[in-house]
Amino acid sequence: MSAEIICIGTEILLGDILNSNAQYLAQELAKLGIPHYYQTVVGDNLNRIHHVIKTALERSSILIFTGGLGPTPDDLTTEAIASYFQTKMIEDGEIIEDIKIKFAHRGREMTPNNRKQALIPQGALVLPNKTGTAPGMMWEKEDKIILTFPGVPSEMKQMWQDTAVPFLKTKGWGQEIIYSQMMRFRGIGESSLAQKVNHLFDLTNPTVAPYASHGEVKLRVSTKAKNPEEARKIIQPITEEIKAIAGQDYFGSDSDTLASVVGNILKQKGETISVAESCTGGGLGAMLTDIEGSSEYFMGGIIAYSNEVKMKLLGVSEDDLNKEGAVSAMVAEQMAIGVREKLGTDWGIGITGIAGPGGGTESKPVGLVYIGIASAKGEVFSYGDTYGSNRGRYLVRYLSACNALDKLRRML
Amino acid sequence: MSAEIICIGTEILLGDILNSNAQYLAQELAKLGIPHYYQTVVGDNLNRIHHVIKTALERSSILIFTGGLGPTPDDLTTEAIASYFQTKMIEDGEIIEDIKIKFAHRGREMTPNNRKQALIPQGALVLPNKTGTAPGMMWEKEDKIILTFPGVPSEMKQMWQDTAVPFLKTKGWGQEIIYSQMMRFRGIGESSLAQKVNHLFDLTNPTVAPYASHGEVKLRVSTKAKNPEEARKIIQPITEEIKAIAGQDYFGSDSDTLASVVGNILKQKGETISVAESCTGGGLGAMLTDIEGSSEYFMGGIIAYSNEVKMKLLGVSEDDLNKEGAVSAMVAEQMAIGVREKLGTDWGIGITGIAGPGGGTESKPVGLVYIGIASAKGEVFSYGDTYGSNRGRYLVRYLSACNALDKLRRML
Repeated sequence: MSAEIICIGTEILLGDILNSNAQYLAQELAKLGIPHYYQTVVGDNLNRIHHVIKTALERSSILIFTGGLGPTPDDLTTEAIASYFQTKMIEDGEIIEDIKIKFAHRGREMTPNNRKQALIPQGALVLPNKTGTAPGMMWEKEDKIILTFPGVPSEMKQMWQDTAVPFLKTKGWGQEIIYSQMMRFRGIGESSLAQKVNHLFDLTNPTVAPYASHGEVKLRVSTKAKNPEEARKIIQPITEEIKAIAGQDYFGSDSDTLASVVGNILKQKGETISVAESCTGGGLGAMLTDIEGSSEYFMGGIIAYSNEVKMKLLGVSEDDLNKEGAVSAMVAEQMAIGVREKLGTDWGIGITGIAGPGGGTESKPVGLVYIGIASAKGEVFSYGDTYGSNRGRYLVRYLSACNALDKLRRML
Repeated sequence: MSAEIICIGTEILLGDILNSNAQYLAQELAKLGIPHYYQTVVGDNLNRIHHVIKTALERSSILIFTGGLGPTPDDLTTEAIASYFQTKMIEDGEIIEDIKIKFAHRGREMTPNNRKQALIPQGALVLPNKTGTAPGMMWEKEDKIILTFPGVPSEMKQMWQDTAVPFLKTKGWGQEIIYSQMMRFRGIGESSLAQKVNHLFDLTNPTVAPYASHGEVKLRVSTKAKNPEEARKIIQPITEEIKAIAGQDYFGSDSDTLASVVGNILKQKGETISVAESCTGGGLGAMLTDIEGSSEYFMGGIIAYSNEVKMKLLGVSEDDLNKEGAVSAMVAEQMAIGVREKLGTDWGIGITGIAGPGGGTESKPVGLVYIGIASAKGEVFSYGDTYGSNRGRYLVRYLSACNALDKLRRML
């Protein structure tokens, strides 16, 4: 038994909308412990929808459709399912009433188009839609389960929770859940980490799988269990082993971010921080204040985009700016010291670099960023890194802000 | 001839990541005029990938794969394609060299795992990956075209543009393109705008369709044409009509953002700007400096998260902070004036609010944000808006930064 998600709509194929429904349903299937191996997207075309149904029935036993339930001639989902199974459609009187009431609430009359939305294949059950006019259906047909939902995410989600989840539970699903912990690492590449934990990739319970994204590497540790508590017990020995292997390169799990981890340590220690930003233009401050309650430790900062501001507000020396250049270890350090003193915080971070695409030279290429960190003890550290001249302005800025947080994390 | 997008990765099936690659590729196929009827997602499993390849070959002639090109045993895309076609894999010496160089740049050594990434089926061409270690391939096999890309979006996009687009053009694609202009509006709701341009929704060439997203409403004006110039001629009368109807609510098209539009006006006028941020914590500065060349008009700013910083660095009056509160029109105005004077710019923006989830009161609920704007003429304006207490911290911060830019845009 496994489920397949089938999203119907030409707007997805044209790239006009992002298919977030598939992600939501995928997460929900994992919560219920229902295996899910395929997702398909197809446009508003009867023959192609038939092809997709045929393929899905060959390999999956629960077919979950979203989209194509509207009142226009483009909306073909119900009709395609009924005709595939050569089943007559019948008009559901309660749906008609419900649609009429919804139109009346908006001070309008039901259009003849909407009559179509009341048709369902003989034998199927209606899944009521509390907010929109498009109901879905639930049909047990030839050992398969077919569920349809409208494409509007808020309607689909509510109907899923109200109707599909209880129904699937009566079928025995949800007694075992798929539980995962996403472990997050920084300062180590995907392949190096994979090599260190290579012996864990063959485990079958829990399973361990690596992922890479910008600025971090992840390991997903997953298991099947009766409930989250039992699952945590199963995965704990493995997550502990991984933490021991990775050391400081492991920084958190699940919804942890570098900013939340750094914030938690600062809060525990009762220490405060301020930032002086050039190339990131406020992005590091924005990352830190993205965390609820960050006002406890983040006091503020100075965005010193121009050299005048670096000198005037942060006390960076004009001589050093001329000699070393604005993008230098010296200036990053002076920015960190300057902002720490000016704002009276325990820690100060300075960040200066060339985000590009212009402004690079042979000795100082696009992507070169210096990070300075000043402490209450009067110490000051700096780090220079090149984030790659062809990674684009966005990534140079994003990765250097992440890196500043990671350097501070290791220091804390 | 039609294309199918096949995304490989168990992380998509578990709902861990949103499949944004499929949307990007769908848009790109539309630009080239390549029909595209199906998208499939499958996990890291050899048999299932084979099933997907078989199905796709039955109905599509261009197969575009993303994901599964990494160095770990989970990464099966290339191997699955080669074994499906019973073709030997050979190691590409140039890829090995390239990976070694990339590791050396980061001060690391290539791991044995990465050798796997140099294997491609005999007869296929390598698609070089400028930034990552995972190259893709392009393989013309039995009248089909097979293209593979890594799952990391930035790498995939660059490789698509650098290699796949020119290749597909040599195959005759791109002679008739689907051309769209996405017109962007702010300060008007989707249904109000739709009502104003209702008569345009029935057009067949060009077509006009509405979209809504956070902080803006969009109209997509599309046509088919031989080239962008011809397309622009077809859509121009309609876009001009829409601009006339929308007035100041229209702010730009396609890749224009509020920050780029404001930046362009400032550059033209030779004026400069600085920002004083409380609740956005640097996000407004980050938005402004996200634009290349923003150093011409953006001098910097002060992130005044704590009240002390508001007083000490921006000269906000302690009396007013106590009387009116940090989240008030008065304080927003003083922040704008303070940063403008301190940084010596033509314009100063101040922004202070309650991003939540904590910190709200009955008279000042979560989501309340004040924006102050100070001009070189000595004028100062302020605006208070509530962004909804249930929209979450991220949206309150994002929308209020957008709103500050929009207020300034209308003033400029």
